Amino acid sequence: MFKINDNYLKLPGSYLFSNIAKKVAAFQQANPDKEVIKLGIGDVTLPLAPKIIDTLHEAVDEMGHAETFHGYAPDLGYEFLRTAIADNDYKSRGCDISADEIFVSDGAKCDSGNIQEIFSIDNKIAVCDPVYPVYVDTNVMAGRTGTYDPVAETWSDVIYMPCTAENNFIPEFPKENPDLIYLCIPNNPTGTTITKSQLQDWVDYANKIGAVIIYDAAYEAYISEDDVPHTIFECEGARTCAIELRSFSKNAGFTGTRLGFTVIPKDLKCGDITLHSLWARRHGTKYNGAPYIIQKAGLACYSEEGKAQLKEQVAYYMNNAKVIKEGLTNAGFTVFGGVNAPYIWLKTPDKMTSWEFFDYLLEKGNIVGTPGSGFGPSGEGYFRLTAFGSHENTLRAMERIKSL
Amino acid sequence: MFKINDNYLKLPGSYLFSNIAKKVAAFQQANPDKEVIKLGIGDVTLPLAPKIIDTLHEAVDEMGHAETFHGYAPDLGYEFLRTAIADNDYKSRGCDISADEIFVSDGAKCDSGNIQEIFSIDNKIAVCDPVYPVYVDTNVMAGRTGTYDPVAETWSDVIYMPCTAENNFIPEFPKENPDLIYLCIPNNPTGTTITKSQLQDWVDYANKIGAVIIYDAAYEAYISEDDVPHTIFECEGARTCAIELRSFSKNAGFTGTRLGFTVIPKDLKCGDITLHSLWARRHGTKYNGAPYIIQKAGLACYSEEGKAQLKEQVAYYMNNAKVIKEGLTNAGFTVFGGVNAPYIWLKTPDKMTSWEFFDYLLEKGNIVGTPGSGFGPSGEGYFRLTAFGSHENTLRAMERIKSL
Repeated sequence: MFKINDNYLKLPGSYLFSNIAKKVAAFQQANPDKEVIKLGIGDVTLPLAPKIIDTLHEAVDEMGHAETFHGYAPDLGYEFLRTAIADNDYKSRGCDISADEIFVSDGAKCDSGNIQEIFSIDNKIAVCDPVYPVYVDTNVMAGRTGTYDPVAETWSDVIYMPCTAENNFIPEFPKENPDLIYLCIPNNPTGTTITKSQLQDWVDYANKIGAVIIYDAAYEAYISEDDVPHTIFECEGARTCAIELRSFSKNAGFTGTRLGFTVIPKDLKCGDITLHSLWARRHGTKYNGAPYIIQKAGLACYSEEGKAQLKEQVAYYMNNAKVIKEGLTNAGFTVFGGVNAPYIWLKTPDKMTSWEFFDYLLEKGNIVGTPGSGFGPSGEGYFRLTAFGSHENTLRAMERIKSL
Repeated sequence: MFKINDNYLKLPGSYLFSNIAKKVAAFQQANPDKEVIKLGIGDVTLPLAPKIIDTLHEAVDEMGHAETFHGYAPDLGYEFLRTAIADNDYKSRGCDISADEIFVSDGAKCDSGNIQEIFSIDNKIAVCDPVYPVYVDTNVMAGRTGTYDPVAETWSDVIYMPCTAENNFIPEFPKENPDLIYLCIPNNPTGTTITKSQLQDWVDYANKIGAVIIYDAAYEAYISEDDVPHTIFECEGARTCAIELRSFSKNAGFTGTRLGFTVIPKDLKCGDITLHSLWARRHGTKYNGAPYIIQKAGLACYSEEGKAQLKEQVAYYMNNAKVIKEGLTNAGFTVFGGVNAPYIWLKTPDKMTSWEFFDYLLEKGNIVGTPGSGFGPSGEGYFRLTAFGSHENTLRAMERIKSL
């Protein structure tokens, strides 16, 4: 008789955003006349930029003729895209990353969920708390996290690094040495960042203890301040301890188009074995490449026209972030993030729990946000709003919050 | 100090098709004047059908306007596509599969590699021999296959079901009871099939011993004979023992466009736990949906126009299969498959090994095929050619083989 992977049963409840979607659907069904503004999930609202649309059309036409048709993509992604990534995201910043250290994929969510597969089940992970749930949940599914404490809402074999207002949302080196360290900078969900020298400390620490940093830089395009690292490979020594995950979802609005990449330097080794070779094997065995037309669209993001148009999109969302930050501050809230990231992290008022504030905001303001506690125990008492709504909706949401 | 997933190191050599690609690249570099005809990897050559191209353009335009832009897709795929699949691939054949039992993905390779994750590590798998390498390799990576015997080229904890000319390529029930049974029908690599009543026997067997059949029907569109099942859900009792994997790669030429789906009936349970719920959790946590524009292209495959155009494409390839089958037979080869599948499985001449014949065919005929032994020990002495080349190249390949 077959048996299931019991680790799945340990997962408490369903995936955070599925939960929220169900709550919102129930509210809308009960209140069909209310117009709900969604500032919850990090989904973009601006259409794809004109240069990307043009490129998609061109690539679609190529697929319609035998001479220019493209079948299976190369395992690691098309050379044209990997070269553009290496040149624009790394070499232009003085970072030593070559095209063949880049693995193109269908997005950072998949990569951040799958990357743990190439590591031993015995490895101990460290995560910031609060944290993007995928990092922890995928390790639960793999059986790497021990037992769940439903009261503390923590796993026995996970090292949590609290990031709260008290420590300025900067994770501290844990007492116990981790093997894998997940860092997301600029941070989801808090919208906060660390400086380049603080990240250098983490790189030095990882090299010292023999840990790998899984560095999620999905929000890199939103960095506005000088001293915030755009990639971990700006730090000395990162080539021997870091894997970087990147996405086209937030800088180019590809949430429904799907494209991302992972960087694994060939110097990152366990004994003689490069992690690059393991991930290449996984890619070759379990993945069949991102669609050609979408890799072409990715390339368009690096053209001069594409860059200019995407810069405008980011500016549009960051203007929303400013509106939210100012609106909430004026309404008396304590607010973090929103300067180098499209997320605003606020303290819930009147000692409400995060879910209490979720219900309150949905019922009274008809606004959807994300409860901080959904991202981990240290997120309790916080709440996330995103800048990805339309400008009109963002303004209206702030009007509603003002009059609550 | 971090440790890697040691199971990866147990994998012998690299992925079959990567190996072939390297050999071919080396040959072409050494012989730049020789024109190589590729009938090896199962990649299509016809461009996407006009209806699909038109639909892609329309969907791209939708992505360019805020009112019709699509961000994150629903976890399980868009309702429009899942309904079209349920209606066309199942209900129209009298099979009781509903839209919410269908999970849209970026292809059957990913699904067939990932599906093992929802099962216990202790489960024992059974595979046909020869077999599509992904089934075995992904179980190796998970640590489910025991130790490798490099002489026999088998894993200690895998049950092999030889499929050779001796048993008409029909797998027999193994002596030891498996927990998971991989069946690919029409078969890759042999191009052979089983009848509906033979498949019913497998369904009855799986229900009796409490096994799950992972049924890969990627080549369903190529079935030309009446008595071959188009889906396992034509069999009575399949809802309690079967998962079906389907692809748009071969029926619609989506190898570089990427779309597939997995069907998990809600009646398939381990105790009270539905496998549907586990796969839904995996999809929600580790996957972010297939691109909107490509799901729309999938929908176009089910339009009357799309169906007619795809039928023509399949006929084109099956005409190639006929050319290969007849060409090889006339040249004195013993040949199987090619009637309900785009694969031709031939016996190597003069007791050559599969790789010897690979080298011989590449060097003397400048034709690339796939060595049967790359699919498992019982594939030794066989060789696979595919019907996915252009008709001109297929004819030329047969000319070359005739004059060898």
